[in-house]
Amino acid sequence: MKPSVLLVECPDRPGLVHGISGVLFRRGVNVVGNHEFVDRPSQRFFMRTEFDGTVDTTELMTELRSVVPEGATLRLSHLEPKRVVVLASKEHHCVADILVRHAFKQLNAHIQAVVSNHDALESFVEKFDLPFHCIPHGELSREVHEAEILTAVLRYKPDYIVLAKYMRVLSPGFVHRFPARILNIHHSFLPAFVGARPYHQAYERGVKVIGASAHFVTEQLDAGPIIVQQVIPVDHTHGAADLAQAGQDVEQLALARAMRLVFEDRVFLCENRTVIFD
Amino acid sequence: MKPSVLLVECPDRPGLVHGISGVLFRRGVNVVGNHEFVDRPSQRFFMRTEFDGTVDTTELMTELRSVVPEGATLRLSHLEPKRVVVLASKEHHCVADILVRHAFKQLNAHIQAVVSNHDALESFVEKFDLPFHCIPHGELSREVHEAEILTAVLRYKPDYIVLAKYMRVLSPGFVHRFPARILNIHHSFLPAFVGARPYHQAYERGVKVIGASAHFVTEQLDAGPIIVQQVIPVDHTHGAADLAQAGQDVEQLALARAMRLVFEDRVFLCENRTVIFD
Amino acid sequence: MKPSVLLVECPDRPGLVHGISGVLFRRGVNVVGNHEFVDRPSQRFFMRTEFDGTVDTTELMTELRSVVPEGATLRLSHLEPKRVVVLASKEHHCVADILVRHAFKQLNAHIQAVVSNHDALESFVEKFDLPFHCIPHGELSREVHEAEILTAVLRYKPDYIVLAKYMRVLSPGFVHRFPARILNIHHSFLPAFVGARPYHQAYERGVKVIGASAHFVTEQLDAGPIIVQQVIPVDHTHGAADLAQAGQDVEQLALARAMRLVFEDRVFLCENRTVIFD
Amino acid sequence: MKPSVLLVECPDRPGLVHGISGVLFRRGVNVVGNHEFVDRPSQRFFMRTEFDGTVDTTELMTELRSVVPEGATLRLSHLEPKRVVVLASKEHHCVADILVRHAFKQLNAHIQAVVSNHDALESFVEKFDLPFHCIPHGELSREVHEAEILTAVLRYKPDYIVLAKYMRVLSPGFVHRFPARILNIHHSFLPAFVGARPYHQAYERGVKVIGASAHFVTEQLDAGPIIVQQVIPVDHTHGAADLAQAGQDVEQLALARAMRLVFEDRVFLCENRTVIFD
Repeated sequence: MKPSVLLVECPDRPGLVHGISGVLFRRGVNVVGNHEFVDRPSQRFFMRTEFDGTVDTTELMTELRSVVPEGATLRLSHLEPKRVVVLASKEHHCVADILVRHAFKQLNAHIQAVVSNHDALESFVEKFDLPFHCIPHGELSREVHEAEILTAVLRYKPDYIVLAKYMRVLSPGFVHRFPARILNIHHSFLPAFVGARPYHQAYERGVKVIGASAHFVTEQLDAGPIIVQQVIPVDHTHGAADLAQAGQDVEQLALARAMRLVFEDRVFLCENRTVIFD
Repeated sequence: MKPSVLLVECPDRPGLVHGISGVLFRRGVNVVGNHEFVDRPSQRFFMRTEFDGTVDTTELMTELRSVVPEGATLRLSHLEPKRVVVLASKEHHCVADILVRHAFKQLNAHIQAVVSNHDALESFVEKFDLPFHCIPHGELSREVHEAEILTAVLRYKPDYIVLAKYMRVLSPGFVHRFPARILNIHHSFLPAFVGARPYHQAYERGVKVIGASAHFVTEQLDAGPIIVQQVIPVDHTHGAADLAQAGQDVEQLALARAMRLVFEDRVFLCENRTVIFD
Repeated sequence: MKPSVLLVECPDRPGLVHGISGVLFRRGVNVVGNHEFVDRPSQRFFMRTEFDGTVDTTELMTELRSVVPEGATLRLSHLEPKRVVVLASKEHHCVADILVRHAFKQLNAHIQAVVSNHDALESFVEKFDLPFHCIPHGELSREVHEAEILTAVLRYKPDYIVLAKYMRVLSPGFVHRFPARILNIHHSFLPAFVGARPYHQAYERGVKVIGASAHFVTEQLDAGPIIVQQVIPVDHTHGAADLAQAGQDVEQLALARAMRLVFEDRVFLCENRTVIFD
Repeated sequence: MKPSVLLVECPDRPGLVHGISGVLFRRGVNVVGNHEFVDRPSQRFFMRTEFDGTVDTTELMTELRSVVPEGATLRLSHLEPKRVVVLASKEHHCVADILVRHAFKQLNAHIQAVVSNHDALESFVEKFDLPFHCIPHGELSREVHEAEILTAVLRYKPDYIVLAKYMRVLSPGFVHRFPARILNIHHSFLPAFVGARPYHQAYERGVKVIGASAHFVTEQLDAGPIIVQQVIPVDHTHGAADLAQAGQDVEQLALARAMRLVFEDRVFLCENRTVIFD
């Protein structure tokens, strides 16, 4: 049986760990893991506790409220699989990695569907018995196309949207509907090479290491909180196309790792940074 | 001012975090960092808490005893710099790295002296105004030589002995006097290539990655608890001598990192493994 | 169009590069890449040259023979996709990675079939429209079972056999039929943890880095020439099962990389080591 | 005895390797290593050949001229140690690493002096019996201060200047005097975090990996050709000061590796990128 997870975020003050652990102790649950962090600049306290045993959620929350400051964010998760819609374009490697992990139950998620602006991945996705929605932009305006994508996504009431090499920029209006609920994989070591064609930019700059950054999407392009970054060394023999090829493995690994962390409720936001308890 | 550190190790049972954090809370100290771990197979509980503020040690310990199981190991550290004697042979890189970090106060340690079975590093060590004791084996039996080394070491009443590429095997009797207090850097990725000439062994085996392992010395050669391991990729162009050369950087990094962890009281032993709170 | 590849291996002597490049120059082909290596201990010369343009193979070989020592190994490859049979057991991640790369034509190979001693992966493999042969050991003796595996494999006349987490040890007789043509992924950093349950061994030893080794299979278990090794850091929070989980990603990456190198004719053997031109 | 090194750079055309290796073969030298690379976009050919044996330089160059295109750059190096002046400010780690490697003859260089705008490292440098020139900016204008630095540097007629965490920006006029002869270590993963306080920038951005970039200095700040980049993972527990501390090890490693490559004549420039034969 999966453990439950208590997530606490509030202004720091003395005695928080003692107080919160006391509530759980008196409720008789068995704590199997515990992480705390205080962010000095913001004086915010973050805590994630895994425990076995059943509790009355309402009573637990009431008791916890009495030991944390006003305005604390408290959340109790039972690690239910998250509902996820994947957005993709033509590239297969991140989508394929997600579908394989999903097929073998390695993601704490139910993938609902893949939505794409191209049909390139249709037959591949269908191997996995998942709905594939192809919404080509064709003659559509940017706004109308995005609205159709949004309609397709909303139908599934997703907890999270995962951009698995989806190559269109989402509008602030779209992003705004899913705060800290859209994950993207950017094919560079952010904040280097923001925007289009990062591997071409990397080639021109002559870098000796390339990377991939999994991050939450915010209204500002490629500027959201970073969850995972992974890198690999390259050299002068790599042209821009070779860099793109070499980058695929770290892209799918960084995205897979970010999904695991988010779907297991291990990621807090702290300003534009992430606090991750792994 | 440095924080104090409370280190607790005991059999696991419910309520330990609550109890221990309660004692600290009531003493009015300010907890600035907290790590716990329960080792499932052995059901051992480990905790390291950093706090600011002064406490009466005796009273604190008495109160703590009342909230932990009988037989718990409790330790209060004020992070005083450790007294350290370095043993070396001919190779300079680990010794040099230690002396530089020491000169710029980057180790939480007072290096007392360097003791060596060769004179190769004498003039280098003396640049740093530290005693250098050269004890060549020459005609001496293994036992007599080690006894002289021991005498030289004991004079400094060290908390820790660091083997910085000391190329003689210490006898069980020597090791036994300093339980979990001798750090060694082994120039391979343990447990691969135990014993002599690991780079030659690695070359013969055709490995594509080499490594260095910093570990506590126990009576069994190269089998003590590992603290830090670091690796670098190599290829067919590296002969055995090239591997040794390439390995120097990871050797000194792994040893430096292990010293930092140990001297800052971040390392627990759990059977033949280490639990490290960094 | 794919380039052709000339592979030369012979005892070293002065003028080899000049002689070989002269033959290619006079034939009017366009060299697009060139690597040479001399292994000092064995005084063996290795060369791999990629070139565009068509040549009469017989004439080219005759001319080349005149500029290299007697007994030289010369090979001309047109980088035809290799015929490959995959052997698997219950674990999916390496097989899945191979099938995805194959589906998107990222391996220079035609996967002929997957042969397994379990049926766990049957439905997955069939998604990819490939034959799946399940040969359970059941009541069979070791010899009879292996003979049936061999029969299933031979039917496809493979250039290479890839052991994608196939958990049975192959007999010397089997291995002997496919010299330097069986690739295996061993789930440890060889030569550490040879044999069964390497992650349990790694856990007991308390390592701080785990790895995966892709190697050619020889008659001695886990002792064949290493092609690729990859590693990831771990810590005390990883039990044996966590190590196994954490190791999956590097296992599939190391195996994928080894397949690419071998199937693109980039790997030479030099005693029990590999010389790799990437 | 050290080998000689022939360095060739010219427009690509068929037969270059054959022609150049033929000249060396006829001169009777023993080639011990050979690397070539053709940069497709620029159609430039690069070659580095190590050989044992003595040759008449003038005759060799004349013969080589006859087999390479007009305008080719030919250089014969006997791997003489380079004359180097180090510029530093207050931070010790890169300077210390250089002085230790120099003391044990691990750099192919003669360090002539350390020039600094601070006196912080004076006593340390003097341990190594090297001149230390402290030129504080004090009341000096930027121009006058730089002119004094230049005077101190020029006195030593250096082949290369190494900026070992020298925290002043050099003017285009200064840089212009030493084309591809000034090495800098920038404490970030370029092109991320150009300019001042890169670790503070990295902290604000919440990166999960930090890096160091060793590069040639050009007239545009932090935009010169990159030689080596190294990275290490970080997490939310690292404040800006912790990032700076964590970055020191990769800074000194990246700079040491870049010096080795440059001082052993392994680095070519190709537009704003480096071609490195290691």
